[in-house]
Amino acid sequence: MERKKQKVVIAGGGSTYTAGIVTMLLENTDVFPIECIKLYDNNAERQEKVAKACEIIAREINPDVKFSWTTDPEEAFTDIDFVMAQIRVGLYALREQDEKIPLNHGVVGQETCGPGGIAYGLRTIGAVIEMIDYMEKYSPNAWMLNYSNPAAIVAEACRRLRPDSRIINICDMPVCLEEIFARILGLGSRKKFDVRYYGLNHFGWWTSIEDKEGNDLMPALKKYCAERGYEEFTPAGQHKESSWLDTMRAAKQLIEIEPETLPNTYLKYYLMQDETVEHADKNYTRANEIMDRREKDVFAECDRIVEAGTAKGTFFAASEHSQFIVELACALAFNTKERFLLIVPNNGAIENFDQDAMVEIPCIVGKDRVEPMSIGRIPTFQKGLMEQQVASEKLAVEAWIEQSYQKAWQSLTMNKTVPSAKVAKEILDDLIEANKEFWPPLN
Amino acid sequence: MERKKQKVVIAGGGSTYTAGIVTMLLENTDVFPIECIKLYDNNAERQEKVAKACEIIAREINPDVKFSWTTDPEEAFTDIDFVMAQIRVGLYALREQDEKIPLNHGVVGQETCGPGGIAYGLRTIGAVIEMIDYMEKYSPNAWMLNYSNPAAIVAEACRRLRPDSRIINICDMPVCLEEIFARILGLGSRKKFDVRYYGLNHFGWWTSIEDKEGNDLMPALKKYCAERGYEEFTPAGQHKESSWLDTMRAAKQLIEIEPETLPNTYLKYYLMQDETVEHADKNYTRANEIMDRREKDVFAECDRIVEAGTAKGTFFAASEHSQFIVELACALAFNTKERFLLIVPNNGAIENFDQDAMVEIPCIVGKDRVEPMSIGRIPTFQKGLMEQQVASEKLAVEAWIEQSYQKAWQSLTMNKTVPSAKVAKEILDDLIEANKEFWPPLN
Repeated sequence: MERKKQKVVIAGGGSTYTAGIVTMLLENTDVFPIECIKLYDNNAERQEKVAKACEIIAREINPDVKFSWTTDPEEAFTDIDFVMAQIRVGLYALREQDEKIPLNHGVVGQETCGPGGIAYGLRTIGAVIEMIDYMEKYSPNAWMLNYSNPAAIVAEACRRLRPDSRIINICDMPVCLEEIFARILGLGSRKKFDVRYYGLNHFGWWTSIEDKEGNDLMPALKKYCAERGYEEFTPAGQHKESSWLDTMRAAKQLIEIEPETLPNTYLKYYLMQDETVEHADKNYTRANEIMDRREKDVFAECDRIVEAGTAKGTFFAASEHSQFIVELACALAFNTKERFLLIVPNNGAIENFDQDAMVEIPCIVGKDRVEPMSIGRIPTFQKGLMEQQVASEKLAVEAWIEQSYQKAWQSLTMNKTVPSAKVAKEILDDLIEANKEFWPPLN
Repeated sequence: MERKKQKVVIAGGGSTYTAGIVTMLLENTDVFPIECIKLYDNNAERQEKVAKACEIIAREINPDVKFSWTTDPEEAFTDIDFVMAQIRVGLYALREQDEKIPLNHGVVGQETCGPGGIAYGLRTIGAVIEMIDYMEKYSPNAWMLNYSNPAAIVAEACRRLRPDSRIINICDMPVCLEEIFARILGLGSRKKFDVRYYGLNHFGWWTSIEDKEGNDLMPALKKYCAERGYEEFTPAGQHKESSWLDTMRAAKQLIEIEPETLPNTYLKYYLMQDETVEHADKNYTRANEIMDRREKDVFAECDRIVEAGTAKGTFFAASEHSQFIVELACALAFNTKERFLLIVPNNGAIENFDQDAMVEIPCIVGKDRVEPMSIGRIPTFQKGLMEQQVASEKLAVEAWIEQSYQKAWQSLTMNKTVPSAKVAKEILDDLIEANKEFWPPLN
């Protein structure tokens, strides 16, 4: 049966990732046929720069796909099948604050972990909920594939505020690491193996990696990781920047602490706080790297394409690891029953973990359907760390819902990256000041 | 019906608390009739000093009670109704290490919280299990009332290793704080109110305090605590020492972080680590205070009593708050159905908390029976903190059972008082060295 052409809106159209995503969609129309791609953003100027280049890219790769952009929610969300959401509320200027404010208090400065992630979460919840409501109003049968960060807090907010909405929260980090695993194993593609994994977003562990004959690949991977971390096989490009490589190297230490599993590298921020803070430059963080390189490069390239009137020779390319977005959309539209790591309500999947929490676990995705796989019981170490972290994330969401200073303070106090309630309060007060245009007022 | 005379062994006979406990037992024979009191300790010399003074005290208060002491387990544990256990493995010399080793790494140095408590736990588990086995062998119908620290880890070890044994784990800290509450309220005695409380040992919160007419006393207590902490009404004596008063003062800050409940002051060590470490004297800790004052005073007083041949004028007295031990024994022996805060298996009492954990909650105690009260659901902040802490305690017990270095490292890494896995390892390696005569070998 021929696959029906899909109508897609990319929310966060002005993102530096948009051109790559658009390219990837256009190059995959054999598996995921597309009728139209719309970009949507509330920042007209930023989006237009990206959109004008993407328009040329679209015309050159696949002129049959209709391409447009808008800042009008009704126009964006009407008559669509999929929302691909990659928004960044406050842009990199606020990410810089997420990173630098904690660091000024000697605490990990990272945009998705610890206080930085909580700050970013409190900026993002409202925008994601707003998009869900637009989608439900204008295209109630559409699906939103959300890979906006901080995914854990966004997912918890969805669970609390829009539990029945058609949003799927997914993160590219496991995909990215599985690509590294594939390289370490010399397998070429992560499609060559099946994984078992559990955790929260940016906070999880692989328990099984098997090839298609059922052979256990974990021993070889664990041995490699224990000796060398994940650094060497990190792909070229932006990810070769120093802060990212530090993170990949950390896997070697993480597996020493917990040798039964393979770690998500973000655990570094929770278990190696002191070294992370020591190695950080308080005056030049990852946000600065991105603003100085990727952001500049991307917008310059967009200008170049528009000026040249062609995308010939562009460095924009369909990144291998954004492929999962198309695969997920295919699964939902065409019932592929493929396996993904998604962030879904626990509901017993992890037996001995908070039942009312969002967890990242393997799921089978079919036509309009997500079937989480049962994980069973998890060990004490992982359970304890996850319970603490999920409590911190839940309190952040409670703080947003209740506009509660107390809950925001408790969220930061609870977090493993924060040494005490006193430091939590100092950071919180600085974050409130920096985010006053974006956070709800906290009483 | 006349109450049957009970046979009691006090395990940890050489404790500085023994004379007070013996006095208390002797003064309460109207409610808890006693046939004999035996002291038991593996430190013959230390116990003999205490025992010879207690023998004189016993003769002068209540000559009908048979009094003896022994280092022989069979003699101690044969034909008894109750074991009152207050052992301290490694004595104050090791407590000093529990406190100073973490402090040397900038981490809270406390004998029941954090790395110090874990170290003390790994020393104590074996001794408590040994006593349970002696009791079951020589007096299978006896009850052990265990108030040895660190109670949380000891209780978890009992749950894991001797789940059906007749041991009741109880702590005097809630009693001590409730006496302070009674003074704050001007009520004279904590018997004037009923409480609801939940948590782990040294890690819990009061949610309700009502007088016998059902009037809510929480608002007045919370208001007082928020303004002044618990310090002012701390009783005279050893507890007026500076480290203890610091702890009582901390309540004011703790209730600011979580204003819906009244905090157990030990939460200070987890939520105010930085201030606690800053105010600590790395060279003179609580163990030094006790060795220099209480321990010296107690042994000098024992010598004085023995030399004088009378306890007339002694400062040994039945402390008000050790009264709960007699009350608990009465409940078990004579079915009083009195209410106590005990450390018991959760089993659903706290609905949204680790079901396989020991929790401190109100229980009704009757003849050979403990009935925990149902707590229901607890808030996110408390749940998150408790899950993290209980995971740290469970990993300590797993480390002991499996002789696992990995689990011990994870236990310390997990603990909220420890900033990173690296610091956890440094502390652990120092603790292993200090405890080599007491810990099982860790592989």
